[in-house]
Amino acid sequence: MAHLDRQRAARLMEAEGIDALLLLTAETFTYATSAPAGVATMWRKTGAIAAVVPADPAIAEGAVVSDLFEAAFRVASSITDIRINPIWVETADITGIAFDPDAANLVAEALRIKGRKGGFARPETFDADLGFQHAADILADRGLQGGHIGIELESLSVSDFRRLQNALPDATFVDASRLVAQLRMIKSPAEIEHLRTAVALSEAGIEMLQKTIAIDVSRDALAAAWTTGVKEEAARRGVKNLTGLWEYVSVGPNPWIQGGAVEEGSLIKVDVGCLISGYTSDTGRTFVCGKPTALQSRLFQGLEAAFAAGLDKLRPGNAMSAVHRAATHAIANAGFPDFTRGHFGHGLGTGPGSEEWPFLSATSETLLEPGMVLAFETPWYVDGVGGMIIEDQLLITADGHEIMNRLPRGLVSV
Amino acid sequence: MAHLDRQRAARLMEAEGIDALLLLTAETFTYATSAPAGVATMWRKTGAIAAVVPADPAIAEGAVVSDLFEAAFRVASSITDIRINPIWVETADITGIAFDPDAANLVAEALRIKGRKGGFARPETFDADLGFQHAADILADRGLQGGHIGIELESLSVSDFRRLQNALPDATFVDASRLVAQLRMIKSPAEIEHLRTAVALSEAGIEMLQKTIAIDVSRDALAAAWTTGVKEEAARRGVKNLTGLWEYVSVGPNPWIQGGAVEEGSLIKVDVGCLISGYTSDTGRTFVCGKPTALQSRLFQGLEAAFAAGLDKLRPGNAMSAVHRAATHAIANAGFPDFTRGHFGHGLGTGPGSEEWPFLSATSETLLEPGMVLAFETPWYVDGVGGMIIEDQLLITADGHEIMNRLPRGLVSV
Repeated sequence: MAHLDRQRAARLMEAEGIDALLLLTAETFTYATSAPAGVATMWRKTGAIAAVVPADPAIAEGAVVSDLFEAAFRVASSITDIRINPIWVETADITGIAFDPDAANLVAEALRIKGRKGGFARPETFDADLGFQHAADILADRGLQGGHIGIELESLSVSDFRRLQNALPDATFVDASRLVAQLRMIKSPAEIEHLRTAVALSEAGIEMLQKTIAIDVSRDALAAAWTTGVKEEAARRGVKNLTGLWEYVSVGPNPWIQGGAVEEGSLIKVDVGCLISGYTSDTGRTFVCGKPTALQSRLFQGLEAAFAAGLDKLRPGNAMSAVHRAATHAIANAGFPDFTRGHFGHGLGTGPGSEEWPFLSATSETLLEPGMVLAFETPWYVDGVGGMIIEDQLLITADGHEIMNRLPRGLVSV
Repeated sequence: MAHLDRQRAARLMEAEGIDALLLLTAETFTYATSAPAGVATMWRKTGAIAAVVPADPAIAEGAVVSDLFEAAFRVASSITDIRINPIWVETADITGIAFDPDAANLVAEALRIKGRKGGFARPETFDADLGFQHAADILADRGLQGGHIGIELESLSVSDFRRLQNALPDATFVDASRLVAQLRMIKSPAEIEHLRTAVALSEAGIEMLQKTIAIDVSRDALAAAWTTGVKEEAARRGVKNLTGLWEYVSVGPNPWIQGGAVEEGSLIKVDVGCLISGYTSDTGRTFVCGKPTALQSRLFQGLEAAFAAGLDKLRPGNAMSAVHRAATHAIANAGFPDFTRGHFGHGLGTGPGSEEWPFLSATSETLLEPGMVLAFETPWYVDGVGGMIIEDQLLITADGHEIMNRLPRGLVSV
């Protein structure tokens, strides 16, 4: 089932006078269709694929699908109005046809049955003009080719916008970048489950890392222990959709150095995430080898004060900025009035980076709503001391929030 | 040292009447500066960083650098005219200052010494308008703010182009997407070395995978064997800049299924790459468990004929299309006249996908030139038989090409 909620999409589109969304990135295509976007999106150019979501939920969605992924699309998506865009990859399918011992005849028959026309030639990569024309046809079939079409101008290139304008000369294009982000900000139950699984695997990895901490153990060995812990937990749970891992583990007084090894008194900062079907978790914990110094403890107490104060504001109806204000105020009161961060956390999802809009920033008037999954964090990188972070992942609920992490947040001595 | 060759850039810019290139993506920033682009590029939006390359090699380059990566930039790059763009991450640096047992005083002093002004507040993520203004200032300091400025319209979003136009109201913007691709198409000696290392690691992984092939061994186990082989070879060589791995390994008659295990007669298709400092290799080999069937052999012979014919054309002065034509003609003569692929290979580098322009396609009039590193491939995905591929990586030399692979290309029985 697609994560996109058409009733909610209808309300947001109506408020902005948009007749249909035309979604062109890999992430938003999968969000609307629940199908894989396919290999033709590797260049992050648009035009190979598209999803059309009319504002009126009674009007069927449509999609432009690359030919290589047609079968996968039909299995994964409930959308049945699809237009096929051929890409560069050559295939054949001999299943279900009468076997011919002559390979040449067999292939010719397989292609004929699939409707291959004489003179068919595949494009160098894909034909963006054809893809945009297919999208225009889907809109035209619904009488929307002259309507207000919402597109993401923050991710659509100037060149591709020109191609799209050629395909839809009568449309009025409206920037729907923010609207699409608002839509994706509230998670479906399945998305929440992906993010729950992701953080559980990530914490299993952190426990494995913690057990590995000892004098002379390298940063790389700690990172490898994290990965092992994640993969073992994935295997134990039978998780089949672990699609990625990332780690920012640092060891010692330089928060940015790659490499290094644990010494007595080293800080070990662990900022890590796992991807489940593309949805990334984001968790941060800090360890110290042996007893923390007075300076390490004082700095970390500042972060703990900020975390506690911000956490208290993470409930529906509060603006994101209220969390930022509370955290900043608390760390100032703890002795660090110049501490400034652009945000203390962010949305989580399938974006190109590990962080996505909305942000817990000083300027964000976005209100917290049930169904949002956020990373909330108070990190500090101090050259001469090390990296420090507290970061949890949480779900905004009807009356507050639910923490998705279970590991303790303190500066843990190992 | 940066990979960008300013003399060659000057010639290409002069031919198109461009006064300066303004490079805004993470890949092109690193290409021009040799410095890491930094975390603010994770969203693939522009404005956090920039590199300015004037056409006249006598005029110094300039760069917009995020504050978090200033120190790394100064170590890595020869560019000294840099403008700092603050991002959301808070830091402090207590190295080299007199120790104060009061953490609050210590941090206040550290920030004061680094020039922190009262009232300084970090942006939610980064301030794209400020980044573009810095780029405009770099151009203005060189008298180029009203010039013809080459930008990549294929990767610049509509929204960011508007921001850039506001910062440079007198500039004439020229689409330099193709020019930048032409520049990056010819590799520096260091880039060639990265790609050589990448393919060597990748082939060590393929050898490990090959040793693992046996009845009932799973696809995932074969993929894991590849990864292990790569990492062991990286450790053996002391390679520190293995920045990524990717694999498309398939087993059995369905080329697209994830999972599955080796059976008697299974095809094992191995299409894999390693990234060294972001530069990806791309190699393909095919194995069969036991004796190939007559059909498997005949199809693979078609791919071998195409490979041999295309390889013969891979020399300076030939158009990329000549390779496509020769390969297509050969596989047709081998009994498969309907076989069509969009391209039989592509450039290699640091692009967002594993393939980059130029392509060995039917329509590419780009001439082969010494210094290009290409993947040349003849793949075929046949449902009911399996995935098959022959893919080598090669360097175009003064009088032909140099294959960077060493493993045999045939359909290897295991």
